[in-house]
Formats: sequence, structure tokens, C-alpha cells
Amino acid sequence: MNEEYVARSAQLALLLEVSAYPKPGNVSRTHDFKDTRYEHFLASSVAVYPVLREAAVRSEGVGELVGKGVEESIKWQSGGNTHFGALLLLIPLAMAAGACESFDMGEIKRKAKEVMLNTNVDDAVEVYRAFPKAKVKVRTDVPELDVMDENSLKEIKEKKLSLYEILTISASYDLISRELVRGFEKTFGYASLLMDFATKRSINDAIAHAYLRFLSEEEDTFVKMKFGTEKSKYVLERAKEIVNSGYVRKEIEEFNEVLIREGINPGSTADIIAAALFVDILGGLRV
Amino acid sequence: MNEEYVARSAQLALLLEVSAYPKPGNVSRTHDFKDTRYEHFLASSVAVYPVLREAAVRSEGVGELVGKGVEESIKWQSGGNTHFGALLLLIPLAMAAGACESFDMGEIKRKAKEVMLNTNVDDAVEVYRAFPKAKVKVRTDVPELDVMDENSLKEIKEKKLSLYEILTISASYDLISRELVRGFEKTFGYASLLMDFATKRSINDAIAHAYLRFLSEEEDTFVKMKFGTEKSKYVLERAKEIVNSGYVRKEIEEFNEVLIREGINPGSTADIIAAALFVDILGGLRV
Repeated sequence: MNEEYVARSAQLALLLEVSAYPKPGNVSRTHDFKDTRYEHFLASSVAVYPVLREAAVRSEGVGELVGKGVEESIKWQSGGNTHFGALLLLIPLAMAAGACESFDMGEIKRKAKEVMLNTNVDDAVEVYRAFPKAKVKVRTDVPELDVMDENSLKEIKEKKLSLYEILTISASYDLISRELVRGFEKTFGYASLLMDFATKRSINDAIAHAYLRFLSEEEDTFVKMKFGTEKSKYVLERAKEIVNSGYVRKEIEEFNEVLIREGINPGSTADIIAAALFVDILGGLRV
Repeated sequence: MNEEYVARSAQLALLLEVSAYPKPGNVSRTHDFKDTRYEHFLASSVAVYPVLREAAVRSEGVGELVGKGVEESIKWQSGGNTHFGALLLLIPLAMAAGACESFDMGEIKRKAKEVMLNTNVDDAVEVYRAFPKAKVKVRTDVPELDVMDENSLKEIKEKKLSLYEILTISASYDLISRELVRGFEKTFGYASLLMDFATKRSINDAIAHAYLRFLSEEEDTFVKMKFGTEKSKYVLERAKEIVNSGYVRKEIEEFNEVLIREGINPGSTADIIAAALFVDILGGLRV
């Protein structure tokens, strides 16, 4: 698929995802974090365009491209981490889409998985180096290969660990890593759901509801780590209730207020919904 | 200036302008028109990226580029006219910026004026052809060279009228045309104002207030044509009161409601603010 087409699809996915509201706990057109505002996401979506286009004509270099994406993002906005998780998903997907003759969901999924399997130690090193630049808020209590620790980088180089291998470790506690090593299962699953939603609701509601549906089906590992099992269970159960009672707007807004008050932001969920949306737009979803 | 830099600056200007709220009478992140929604503007901003980049490496072909921009926009969204006026301003500005070694407001202004003066009959024909595709709501009661009339196109070709010459006719009743034949005076004037605002307020308020300031200083010719002198005077006077009393949010919101209720949308004002923002971003304004 043409690289401008791929890049525009990815960029539009980022913009539509961040704009969708209300999205309990996350940045949207009606909610800013204190330091990271909606406009920072707009600027970052603009900034990464050339990197997304480059990804669509590359067959290797996931780590380098993620690093470039982070570099561009922080050149264009000062709100800290906006798209690190999203780039980790979108870059291999863009590489896969660029390598396909035409849109074929199964083929893109296969190729994206292949791209990840083919990563090497350079990819691992580049992603590790991008972490502090992106100002990602990460767990520092994970014993294995702490991303903020210079020794981890040394160990990665010595053992020649590929990005894929590293991600298999973090997959136990991180949704994005899990996606990347398990062949983008959730991304493509939610792409189908979202495509279905989009035929019946406004694009905003389709995205916001898919996001809620994800919260109701997947325990956000980041929330679990940071806020404990009780909180992550609460998020899951409350999301389930809202989904089961038909996505009542008032209930979603109240849920949003609770999560904002407690500082619970299921950011990885938003990243996966953006990736799902990217797949749908590649396949022809339009506003 | 680098073409990716120019294109990203223009795209970010479009995104930040349409997102700013409340913007009395216009589409914003919190207000859709019935058929043209906020998301249509997001998709259109994404769609035109490659055309904006191409403009930055071209020295002629304003009409062709505007036509291409419209084609891309309508491929990516179904909300009708989103960026016709904005493209008419941004394309020559992007051409001018691309031709400059580094950022120099005066040089970009001079070159943009030159680009317009150098337009020819092909540019005129291409812009005329783009009109119906863009679904621009135009006056049809203007006697000279009605854009919806095939005979006008014939006359333009026979008389070999340049785009610049045509715009000198519409300059009497159209803000955008006036900008294009008078060397982007308002664009650069408001770029300075906006840059100043942005040092003192959030980017959202800087844009929304610059928009109001424009309404308070320039009678929107489109509003005058469509709704009569009384209405356009009301818009001007009310905007003046709000500006003079210090941009009170509640007053802006009430003004917004009145304009929405009456269907008064000063779209050309929004286009000029987007162009001003483009100049500022080229010059280094960041979020």
C-alpha cells in the first residue's frame, strides 16, 4: 500500500482516537492532563507523519523508527509522553501495511507479527534509549531489565537480546508488550468490533464505546501495577456494568470523573484502540 | 525551509485552529455543523498533507495545488467544504515558505504576494473547477464571473484572465480574495497579534481570542452578503463589546449560541486565523 496512504491512515487514527470523548481517565478533546494536554497530542500526531511514512517503505528498523518518532514528537510539543505506546504499535503495523499490495487484514497481521519476530538487538537498544526521551512513566520496581537503568542496556548488548525477546519479559505486566509479542491479537480483534460499531454510531461514539468495551474485557495491567488489584478490578467491573447497560452517556461521564479524580489513566487501552482504528482506516473506514 | 517542516506547520495550524473553542458561529472541538463535523476537519487536515508538502517545493501551480488539495480532502471525508478557503491561503504561503532559506516573516510575505501576482489563466481555471467539487457555498447573485456558471469559465479562458485578476473582482465582497490580492496583510497582522496572545494565554485562548478580535475589527463580507448589513454590524459590534470587556468566557459562549442559532458562520475569519497561525508555527510557535 502507498506510503502516503499508510501514513495518513495512521495519523488520522491518532487524531480521531485522542479526540473521542468521554474516554474515562484519558486525554480527549474535553479533557487535559495537567501537563499533557489535548493540543500536545495534536502536535505530536503532526510531528510523527514523516516517520510513519518512512515506516511504510521499510522492512526493518522498528527501534530506530520508534526512536525517530519520539525525537520528532518532542521537537513539536512540550507535554511529555504522548505517543510512545502508540508508536510501538503503529510502526510495525505501518511497515506491514506498506509491504502489502492491497488491504488484507490477515496479511497485515501476519506481516506485522513477522516484523516483530525479526527485530534484533539494535531495535532493543534504540527502544531503550527512546524511553527516557519520551518521558514515559514506567514501573521502576520490575527487576528484569529496568528501562531506566544503564546496566540493563549493557546486559541487552552483551546477551544480544532482540526487541522481541525483551518484550516477552515485559509482556507479563504490560499490554503493549503483550500485543507486540502475541501478533497484535487485541488490535485486530478490536478493529473488527470498532468497524462494526462505526456502522451504527457516530465515529466519536464508536471509538469511545470500543475503548469502554476494552476496559470491560481486559484488566489494564498498568492500572493494576500502579494502583493495585482492587482498583483495576473496580475499573473492569464498572466498565462492564456500563457496557451491559448500553453505554449510557451520563454513567460514562461519572466513571470518567472518578478515574480523573483518582489519576487512573488506562493509556495502553487508548493506544490499542488507536492501532485498531488504524487498521480500520487502512481498510476504508472514513468519516 | 524544509518541505516536511512547512507541511507540518500548515497542518498543525489547521488542527489547532479548528480545535479552538468557543469560536462564535464556527466548527470547533465542541461544535459541529449539521453536515460538517469536527471530525471532517481532522480528516481533511490529514488528507491535504502531501499537497502542502508539494507546495513547499513548487514555485508555480497555485490553482493545480488547490485543486489537488480539494480532491484529497473529499477522498478522506464526506462533510463537504472544510478547507477550500484555508487552502487558497495556505498554498501560496507554503510555496513562499518553501522558497525561503530560513524563517523571515517579511520575506515570506513578499514571496507569497509574488506567487499570487505570477498566477495565470491555468490557475484561474483550476480554482474555478475546484469550486463545485469542494461544495463551497458561494453567492450566485454576483454578476461577474459566477463560479458556478460554465460561461464564466469560457470567458476566463478567452480573456486569459489570471487567478490574480479574477480575485481582484471578488475582493470587493470576499475576505479571502482580498487577502490574496493585497499581499496577505491581515494574515501577517494577525500572526503578530496571535504570537503576542500566545505568550500570555493558553494556545486555545490565544486562537479563540484572535478570532474574536478579527470579528471585532473586520466586517465579515460573507455574513454581510448572506445576512445583510444589520446582522454583520451586529456581529462586529457584539465582538467589539466582548473584546473591550476582556474576553469574558460566558459572554463568548452566549455570542456563540446566538450565531449558531441564526446560522451565521464567519468561516473566512477562521481561514485567515489558520493562515496567521501557520506563519507563527513556521516561526517557532509551539504547544
